[in-house]
Amino acid sequence: MKKLQLLLVWVFVFTCAVNAQQLKSPNGNITMSFALNANGTPTYSLQYKQKDVVKTSKLGLELKDDKKSLLSDFTIADTKTATFDETWKPVWGEVNAIRNHYNELAVTLVQKEIDRKILIRFRLFDEGLGFRYEFPSQKNLTYFVVKEEKTEFAMAGDHTAFWIPGDYDTQEYDYNTTKLSEIRALGEKARTANVSQQGFSPTGVQTSLMMKTNEGLYLNIHEAALLNYPCMHLNLDDRTMTFQSWLTPDAKGDKGYVQVPFNTPWRTVMVSDDARDIVASKMIYNLNEPSKIKDVSWIKPVKYMGVWWEMITGKSTWAYTDDYPTVELGITDYNKAKPNGKHGATTANVKKYIDFAAKNGFDAVLVEGWNVGWEDWFGHLKDYVFDFVTPYPDFNVQELHAYAKAKGIKLIMHHETSSSVRNYERHIDTAYKFMKANGYDAVKSGYVGNILPVGENHYSQWIINHYQYAIEKAADYHIMVNAHEAVRPTGIARTYPNLIGNESARGTEYQAFGGSKPNHVTILPFTRLLGGPMDYTPGIFEMDISKFSPNNNSHVNSTLANQLALYLTLYSPLQMAADMPEHYERFPDAFQFIKDVAVDWDDSKYLEAEPGQYLTVARKAKGTGKWFLGSVNGDNVRTSNITLDFLEKGKKYVATIYADTKETNYKTNPQAYNIRKITVTSKSKLAQFCAAAGGYAISFEEIK
Amino acid sequence: MKKLQLLLVWVFVFTCAVNAQQLKSPNGNITMSFALNANGTPTYSLQYKQKDVVKTSKLGLELKDDKKSLLSDFTIADTKTATFDETWKPVWGEVNAIRNHYNELAVTLVQKEIDRKILIRFRLFDEGLGFRYEFPSQKNLTYFVVKEEKTEFAMAGDHTAFWIPGDYDTQEYDYNTTKLSEIRALGEKARTANVSQQGFSPTGVQTSLMMKTNEGLYLNIHEAALLNYPCMHLNLDDRTMTFQSWLTPDAKGDKGYVQVPFNTPWRTVMVSDDARDIVASKMIYNLNEPSKIKDVSWIKPVKYMGVWWEMITGKSTWAYTDDYPTVELGITDYNKAKPNGKHGATTANVKKYIDFAAKNGFDAVLVEGWNVGWEDWFGHLKDYVFDFVTPYPDFNVQELHAYAKAKGIKLIMHHETSSSVRNYERHIDTAYKFMKANGYDAVKSGYVGNILPVGENHYSQWIINHYQYAIEKAADYHIMVNAHEAVRPTGIARTYPNLIGNESARGTEYQAFGGSKPNHVTILPFTRLLGGPMDYTPGIFEMDISKFSPNNNSHVNSTLANQLALYLTLYSPLQMAADMPEHYERFPDAFQFIKDVAVDWDDSKYLEAEPGQYLTVARKAKGTGKWFLGSVNGDNVRTSNITLDFLEKGKKYVATIYADTKETNYKTNPQAYNIRKITVTSKSKLAQFCAAAGGYAISFEEIK
Repeated sequence: MKKLQLLLVWVFVFTCAVNAQQLKSPNGNITMSFALNANGTPTYSLQYKQKDVVKTSKLGLELKDDKKSLLSDFTIADTKTATFDETWKPVWGEVNAIRNHYNELAVTLVQKEIDRKILIRFRLFDEGLGFRYEFPSQKNLTYFVVKEEKTEFAMAGDHTAFWIPGDYDTQEYDYNTTKLSEIRALGEKARTANVSQQGFSPTGVQTSLMMKTNEGLYLNIHEAALLNYPCMHLNLDDRTMTFQSWLTPDAKGDKGYVQVPFNTPWRTVMVSDDARDIVASKMIYNLNEPSKIKDVSWIKPVKYMGVWWEMITGKSTWAYTDDYPTVELGITDYNKAKPNGKHGATTANVKKYIDFAAKNGFDAVLVEGWNVGWEDWFGHLKDYVFDFVTPYPDFNVQELHAYAKAKGIKLIMHHETSSSVRNYERHIDTAYKFMKANGYDAVKSGYVGNILPVGENHYSQWIINHYQYAIEKAADYHIMVNAHEAVRPTGIARTYPNLIGNESARGTEYQAFGGSKPNHVTILPFTRLLGGPMDYTPGIFEMDISKFSPNNNSHVNSTLANQLALYLTLYSPLQMAADMPEHYERFPDAFQFIKDVAVDWDDSKYLEAEPGQYLTVARKAKGTGKWFLGSVNGDNVRTSNITLDFLEKGKKYVATIYADTKETNYKTNPQAYNIRKITVTSKSKLAQFCAAAGGYAISFEEIK
Repeated sequence: MKKLQLLLVWVFVFTCAVNAQQLKSPNGNITMSFALNANGTPTYSLQYKQKDVVKTSKLGLELKDDKKSLLSDFTIADTKTATFDETWKPVWGEVNAIRNHYNELAVTLVQKEIDRKILIRFRLFDEGLGFRYEFPSQKNLTYFVVKEEKTEFAMAGDHTAFWIPGDYDTQEYDYNTTKLSEIRALGEKARTANVSQQGFSPTGVQTSLMMKTNEGLYLNIHEAALLNYPCMHLNLDDRTMTFQSWLTPDAKGDKGYVQVPFNTPWRTVMVSDDARDIVASKMIYNLNEPSKIKDVSWIKPVKYMGVWWEMITGKSTWAYTDDYPTVELGITDYNKAKPNGKHGATTANVKKYIDFAAKNGFDAVLVEGWNVGWEDWFGHLKDYVFDFVTPYPDFNVQELHAYAKAKGIKLIMHHETSSSVRNYERHIDTAYKFMKANGYDAVKSGYVGNILPVGENHYSQWIINHYQYAIEKAADYHIMVNAHEAVRPTGIARTYPNLIGNESARGTEYQAFGGSKPNHVTILPFTRLLGGPMDYTPGIFEMDISKFSPNNNSHVNSTLANQLALYLTLYSPLQMAADMPEHYERFPDAFQFIKDVAVDWDDSKYLEAEPGQYLTVARKAKGTGKWFLGSVNGDNVRTSNITLDFLEKGKKYVATIYADTKETNYKTNPQAYNIRKITVTSKSKLAQFCAAAGGYAISFEEIK
């Protein structure tokens, strides 16, 4: 049981009513200014060390069927400031204690003529700003429909951006690194194929959006606590370099049904002149509510393997048979079907994974393709696509439950919904009960394909509500959730720490779908990971997929050492060794790192960080005090220069370094690596060669 | 336990492949012709006693993203004919045995070029035709999206129609009686206000559509077995007097997602020169599958009262308090709220109804407004609007359960969903379990307001699927369903006899919302009731609503005798005495009929029938053998002339006749009635005066 530790809370409150207000970050580096303009429209601006970060930008919401909307004619009725400083202990995380320290400004605005009020709450942290709209209970504002949220983020220059195209249905894109002014030109070319996708503007991009200014400032725009509201995208006016919020619409094109009282998600702008501050920031989590799950003893980090990569690569199949053009659950008789001979989730194959996982100290094994329906699961907006409880004839639930239990392995359930969301909700209680009855306490859920009900999108309010429903219901059953293709996380794992993972970005699977950009993993920590952990599924040792899946010519754009480093650089309490046992058996010395590496941490130190180029982080394992280090590299060969000053002073350690060699090449020679042991102290320096798409990993063992 | 009684089944099968086929009804009165036209488009026509009923009309479906669609280029691959004759016993009904007797033609059609096939199955009964499209399992037709079903019904003249405007969301309209050519002119004027409504065409009308030709033929177009498909409307081409099917679209405008194998609902055309054949027909039921509920012992007809009319009329409220502008379930604290003093569903008031119901031999009491949320339930597409298990502070579930049980009364649950369909499904298991735990075995469900998810309609495929889900899930819990604002029934109560009622038309409540047309109840049996029973909620004794609800000036357009007759003329296994106890106590002699009348029948004899004008029916109570008779009258004073030859020959009966007097006037003197007793036999004739919007009811008691 973790307990919230309240270290220090000071609150100053005062009230005034002037038209402009300033707020400073606790360390004084950031200044936020709030003002009403001549139209009574709220505006804000942000400066970092006297440099403009956000120029004067408007705030407000356009309402449907409401002439005035919540855009102008405001006067300030009240302002309150406060300071908050508290340290809390996450259930799992990169660190064992998180400081939540900010200065706050809460401005109450009224439209006098129609007697309506809203409140804009700003929280200024050392790493950036969060703000949201609050609608307190009142007579003249009870329900409204959002036509568009009109939150602006006016950039101070033509920054370099690490962006993926705005899309209502997927985030599974490679990142583009361009000037803001170049987004439009790349436009739809950035929208690579996905089974469900819908753009909205040639300059639409997604959050979390990472940027770097010419002056060397690192900026990030994202949101926090996305609950019961559409997901926010950003649309760039590339004449003024101003982003405006662009919410995900529903089937009618509306952008949110709001019942007052209500608070929107937080809109966040992080800023620093040190990129490490961005990746280390816990601001997104701090803007979320504390855990609503009281007993968290059942929530545990997981290192797992899975019957998965063999299907992703095409070596085996989720489906059991090729006999049927369509499947009707409950009617199609699988016992009469001829097995296709390539089904992955057979009892025998799962036992092989269980054996390997148990022998090598893993916690769990994921099995996909175990339940009936996979012959016909996709692309037809089929309603009753899966029932989540009926196994294929060759998958023995009870036998595997007993077998895994005897070996100390947990099985991880897989619930692919095919985005038939109603069908999933109809079965969710039964499915969760089935899991608990058969020893499963974690589920990987999937939302592949277009959403049912038709007209809704993966990121519209209706479906955001569903993801949350699934998380909260899972918590009732003490089930951990790893949701794929769901909306990007926005720190709600603080409130619901059973959300131990999400996909919500381009994961390792794309290495088997043609490959990802070599520097992809150097951007994810600055974007996708800021809102919560990603089930990226690292650990691929065989980069040439055609070697074991002849019809797949994809190549994994990564060195083997890079794959090891990912266990550190892509933080997650849920880490997979995604490759197949036979590939690990070929490289037992490298595999040792995956066996050794922890998945939960007392502390983390970011040593080097540059989006798109490199990231180096050292982490101290929870409980054991053992340090591990990972470093990933982007497109160009480089030498990582670090000091090991995170190690305890006065102690000696053996550092086992898993690294690229000079011969390593992610395309032609990715499996070249070197493992060496050296003795180090907190004073040691390391200059480590990294291949393109390479890197290194280190485990430290104290010499006692 | 009812058992299916198989009396006689002959089947002739032969196969041929000519381009035209004829089929005759068992009695030979109706002839159906099928042919392919020059384009390979299937067509059919219908004749009754050599008169054209449906002129040559095209059949087929337009598919989305499919050039050829299922409209033309067909050749006949196979035809099969058969005869079927079977008698089955319904769980409840107007009769205790239903003969299902038809001749069948099944035509298999192929589009050779793309190797696709469909089958059109025609069943010709003595009362009319049913046909449907069938899509057998095949390689080149697995999934498709219906752009529009193109089924035509070409009328042979400018018939008189009894119609309500086509609408995707409501059937709660007064019927219009006009020539087909006059539909367009009346147009939107026929679309009286409803809280959820959406028209589609100035000549769009709903099924069941009743018509009468100049030659005195009675026609009806409807559908049967509407399952997992959008509800069909009809759009009239008023130059050619041809109706075409017009399915209810989804949020994207699509009209049905189909997975093959699949059968559409049946399209039905009833025809007779005797209007009584239409109202007596069981063709719609016969086109549905036999009961899928094996143990039906728990399904029982119900005569009930309810805490309902007092809220409908405005005398009391569903809501408990006026304190809150909005309500958030689980957050709003009702224990802190000031009661508004008008809440209907208080423990004390419900006990009053239970006492009265028990004293007068009723089975059950419905209570609406018992659960939290009614302060803020409507008009905002609110998602979490009700939880279906939390009572108001002044409604004691346990106490009332015990009280009702001790008095031999069942309480009927009320689940208003506010059309927040997902929310209902999320709570439905818990809600049904709560019902069973507290002694409820029937639920009145409601779907007031616009449907959530947005873009869906009350009659779109997605929501049709929901209604069915609720019925089948209720059956699992042995719960009977009475669904209001749901889609019109199409005979599925044969398959799921726990569907003991529906609203799906303008019921008595509209008498408190401004009043219905005086002849409304003379049309319902020819339209709405053909697909299944209606919870019309008759039995209003106080027509002047302002007398007890001062702010409501509505007047019930009916005489008191008419209200009694409705218990016979509007067949339902679920019959309400909808008025309040104090009104019944003022007319104990008339109320005696409601106490006496049965709700389940061994036999029914339609004696007089003319749509829009009158309907007279005699029914023999199940088990007791007692006869009852009801007669309703339309706009004009008339004398009903009947022979009592349904009575058992040689026996004498006392007939107690509850009738209008010469002074009765539904507007100015509706409560004038006369009760007289006469001795009758099967040879007796009766000439009974009926006021406009009046009628009479008779109970027969054998003299032994």
